[in-house]
Amino acid sequence: MNLTPSLFAPAEFPDLPHIRGVSAATGSRGFYADRGPPRDDVFLFRFDPNTVCAGVFTQSTTASADVAWCREALKEGQGAARALVVNSGNSNAFTGPKGEIKNAATLSAIQAALGVPKSECFLAATGVIGEPLEDPNYVGSIVPDLAACLDVPDWQACARAFMTTDTYPKGAGGTCQVEGVPVQLAGIAKGSGMIAPNMATMLAYVFTDVAISAPLLQELLAELTERTFNAITVDGDTSTSDTLMVFATGQAGHPPLRQRSDPRFVAFAEALEAVLHDLAVQIVKDGEGASKFIKIDVEGAPSQSAAKKMAAAIANSPLVKTALAASDANWGRVVMAIGNSGVSLNQADLSIWFGDTQVAESGARAPKYDEEKASAECQKTHISLRVKVGAGTGQFTMYTCDLTHAYIDINGAYRT
Amino acid sequence: MNLTPSLFAPAEFPDLPHIRGVSAATGSRGFYADRGPPRDDVFLFRFDPNTVCAGVFTQSTTASADVAWCREALKEGQGAARALVVNSGNSNAFTGPKGEIKNAATLSAIQAALGVPKSECFLAATGVIGEPLEDPNYVGSIVPDLAACLDVPDWQACARAFMTTDTYPKGAGGTCQVEGVPVQLAGIAKGSGMIAPNMATMLAYVFTDVAISAPLLQELLAELTERTFNAITVDGDTSTSDTLMVFATGQAGHPPLRQRSDPRFVAFAEALEAVLHDLAVQIVKDGEGASKFIKIDVEGAPSQSAAKKMAAAIANSPLVKTALAASDANWGRVVMAIGNSGVSLNQADLSIWFGDTQVAESGARAPKYDEEKASAECQKTHISLRVKVGAGTGQFTMYTCDLTHAYIDINGAYRT
Repeated sequence: MNLTPSLFAPAEFPDLPHIRGVSAATGSRGFYADRGPPRDDVFLFRFDPNTVCAGVFTQSTTASADVAWCREALKEGQGAARALVVNSGNSNAFTGPKGEIKNAATLSAIQAALGVPKSECFLAATGVIGEPLEDPNYVGSIVPDLAACLDVPDWQACARAFMTTDTYPKGAGGTCQVEGVPVQLAGIAKGSGMIAPNMATMLAYVFTDVAISAPLLQELLAELTERTFNAITVDGDTSTSDTLMVFATGQAGHPPLRQRSDPRFVAFAEALEAVLHDLAVQIVKDGEGASKFIKIDVEGAPSQSAAKKMAAAIANSPLVKTALAASDANWGRVVMAIGNSGVSLNQADLSIWFGDTQVAESGARAPKYDEEKASAECQKTHISLRVKVGAGTGQFTMYTCDLTHAYIDINGAYRT
Repeated sequence: MNLTPSLFAPAEFPDLPHIRGVSAATGSRGFYADRGPPRDDVFLFRFDPNTVCAGVFTQSTTASADVAWCREALKEGQGAARALVVNSGNSNAFTGPKGEIKNAATLSAIQAALGVPKSECFLAATGVIGEPLEDPNYVGSIVPDLAACLDVPDWQACARAFMTTDTYPKGAGGTCQVEGVPVQLAGIAKGSGMIAPNMATMLAYVFTDVAISAPLLQELLAELTERTFNAITVDGDTSTSDTLMVFATGQAGHPPLRQRSDPRFVAFAEALEAVLHDLAVQIVKDGEGASKFIKIDVEGAPSQSAAKKMAAAIANSPLVKTALAASDANWGRVVMAIGNSGVSLNQADLSIWFGDTQVAESGARAPKYDEEKASAECQKTHISLRVKVGAGTGQFTMYTCDLTHAYIDINGAYRT
């Protein structure tokens, strides 16, 4: 499958900082051998001793064997991390006992090559669901080669190695000061379809040299996920492999962060949120077939979770998404979607804006409704919808893309 | 917008019986004047005295003014029915006080023309959401003309008058014996997009001369809706106007049905279910852009509602629907969708069949998996998916269609 780059693809992959204590290598196991030009499809990261990590994973009940392993390792290793191996081309999801056997072989290979405990090694896989790898060592067999050429990470090469239907590699970096010491962050992500909120979405990894305790990092990640990766949707379909992890080597050179109340914590939390937000938005902008990037703000809801339900109902409505794909200001479909969110509503409290143009006011079409102005908003490639549903304090912002012919083409041809 | 007829359009509109006590007329109020050739867009039904009715309506919180009126009338009139007026072209949804004013004018016109109480008159409207009718008497003004030419219903003309993006008129009829007396049923429906389960879907009306008490008819309708209209989905979007009503004139000539335990009740319930099922399936077969009709059976779930959630997750997944549109037996996406249904699951209990071909068995790809056979199933225009999720007794069958380019074309052009 030959994919046209997304309209929103950045001109260049960003410059990401080196993270002290992190090395990486990429290679090819031939997962894409019969699908286009040669490409890398596996990466290995090694972390120095004392690296901690945090992770959030798909809430799917058909989660992949790799996700199951990561959950187990996080618990067993109490947040210690020494290695990460990720492959694209096969998701190792719904592969039954064969999936666990493949993981065991990969973990043994990592342990042998790097001399680290298995419970501190993390795995992920992305690609077709349900196709078992007949050779259990298919991924493990490349680990010694990768271990032999570990070096300062080539972030772009890593970001490319785990792409599937992505049309561009996704990276985001940042820096912040903790007690006068510069702390660096570098993140990579993949994802384009099978993207839906209410879980950690697709594969994303952030690396930092901050010194932080594992429990505090986990608490922070869970909180930030809610308004970054859990605030995006492409098609409402939740993947079996969604994984978001943060690895912190602690080598920045400041005394470790251990408490939320620590005044130094805020700077790092803000820097991490900025990186997560950037990566999440890049996934939406590379949404399969996307021609419009759509920001949906819901305010005045009885609670934040009610606001999120309403925003998600709009963001996942195929009728809203096809109208916007055609630059049609069909705001009645936004009304329809809100009506289906499952949150109770007084119609007379409902007002809607497309950009700065109010289209609905207090339960009916706005008296000064101007079709031309509303249409002009919908011609843009970045569309903003704002919905006021009452006088409550609940607010949520969700990001999505439109539904176009290309989505259908991509998903009809995915396995071929 | 010029729509190609659905692949599944029947060669002919079915022969529907005359229902004693029912007359009808259709006409044009010009809702489609600027959108193609002349067509009828309003119908009026008159019912003889002693007609009772039952209705189920959208669960949307942004329901139309017409739906709100029907709920009120059903309650106030205790199930008595004398008239029904439905228009296409404008849904009278989210029209604020103007929507109620339009309804009041229409009801006054019906009362004046037919001499019947307003609380026994039912209304519905379907079309664009949010565009208020500036002339409150826009629909009411045609009622006297329609009343003047009431006659034995031309079912096909009625079914055509409330079409929107439908590509064929939908009708279904039946007959049954109650105490040796023939009872007739005739039904019409419209609907093609904005179709989702968990409510009464779109506009459908069934007329019968059975003699039945209004409460018993309401109880039966609610029960049958669950496995007919609430078992279909096109795009997961619930309309603001969904209405399903049954009108029973009682003129068949048998003593009235008043109790479920009445042994005569079963014959009528079965006949009504058959008509509802037929109409619901016709809506899916005319699903916007449909090229495949898909039946999804989930069995072995802990409860019927769990089975329904799982079936709906599959039926509403854009990834499943685009794969089937491309005749791709991508059964991994069925696994993904089940994983997102919100019902807990042991993966090792999951088996999947495409037609008679088993593709997944006990939590992994079936040992005898045959891609060619599975693909052959997906080439068909009628595709059957069967999913066994455990050893429970919960079962549900849902009907949907695929997601094709035509869906995007239709819904990008709807208002133009």
